[in-house]
Amino acid sequence: MSRTAYREAVRILAAKGLVHSRPKAGTRVSPRSSWHFLDPDVLRWIFESGTPDPAFLRELFELRQIVEPAAAALAAERRTPQHVEDLRRALDNMDKYGLAVEDGRNADRLFHELILMATGNEALGTLASGIASAVRWTTMFKAKDGQMPRDPLPEHVAVFLAIEKGDPVEARRTMAELVGLALNDIAALGDEAGLPRRAGV
Amino acid sequence: MSRTAYREAVRILAAKGLVHSRPKAGTRVSPRSSWHFLDPDVLRWIFESGTPDPAFLRELFELRQIVEPAAAALAAERRTPQHVEDLRRALDNMDKYGLAVEDGRNADRLFHELILMATGNEALGTLASGIASAVRWTTMFKAKDGQMPRDPLPEHVAVFLAIEKGDPVEARRTMAELVGLALNDIAALGDEAGLPRRAGV
Repeated sequence: MSRTAYREAVRILAAKGLVHSRPKAGTRVSPRSSWHFLDPDVLRWIFESGTPDPAFLRELFELRQIVEPAAAALAAERRTPQHVEDLRRALDNMDKYGLAVEDGRNADRLFHELILMATGNEALGTLASGIASAVRWTTMFKAKDGQMPRDPLPEHVAVFLAIEKGDPVEARRTMAELVGLALNDIAALGDEAGLPRRAGV
Repeated sequence: MSRTAYREAVRILAAKGLVHSRPKAGTRVSPRSSWHFLDPDVLRWIFESGTPDPAFLRELFELRQIVEPAAAALAAERRTPQHVEDLRRALDNMDKYGLAVEDGRNADRLFHELILMATGNEALGTLASGIASAVRWTTMFKAKDGQMPRDPLPEHVAVFLAIEKGDPVEARRTMAELVGLALNDIAALGDEAGLPRRAGV
């Protein structure tokens, strides 16, 4: 590995909070508290490096449960006709391909990302790629054996219809239900595998 | 400016979503939708480059209103004795210095950051520095003339007491009130200055 390539790699890892360099002390791995867990690359590295800690999976769902229902409510109030059209296309592709294949998972990821963008809130929009990546990896984790434990399309359609008709209360409720059902799928998998739960989480 | 310094600066801006480089096309400013609005540096640049768009300020509060009450509820369930002690010290410093000076604003920022850390959720913890920066800059904006429109200490004490006694319902309620009061302060400032509201927000 060339010195330049090494430096560039360290810079990328440092920008994502994974390592830090100090003059003379060299480069060290940073404490997990500084890792950018919502960076799509960091999520990919965590999920591609083996079975993720089930406590971490639950934490991602907890974050989704905080952000996504609130975002769906705002999206119902502020979505443009273009957002509605894009959401409908994402749903069609989820239906067409299914979540066991990459094209279907990408459509799912896009559906969740579009809802965050449709809030019209740029600060919330910053979370779109991270939340969408979390959706993608948690879905991939469920579908590892090529089989989804349950068809998730009906709850996605319910969220879409609430946003389309501009009903924030219904959008919040249906999205909370969607995330809750997805978390149940994961929890069931974790129990089957006898995976430990982190204390208090 | 040296070629190396320029390259390093472009790399940093690119890592924060502000610019992108393409072979032959050179470096261009990226669309706002790719900016990392919760990066502490990006927030600093926005707030230091002049009066920020009041719509953007409202968006930061909207994000805080989604994340912080939920985080306070989780913190009430999971905080360690060390978290309680650190929160108490931050409150003491807010009281001692006041929010018109840097030391007091840092204590305020730390108070909000500690609550996100006390959730014990690493994915939520990723948002801590961004949310804390948003707290810092929105507070700075209010205190620009050296005078706070209102003493914010009582509502911070209420949040602290709820977290200390481990009451998630009360922690959520008091934090929602704190953020709501802070947003009212900003909204009043915006109206005084005759600043436009972004349509639909």
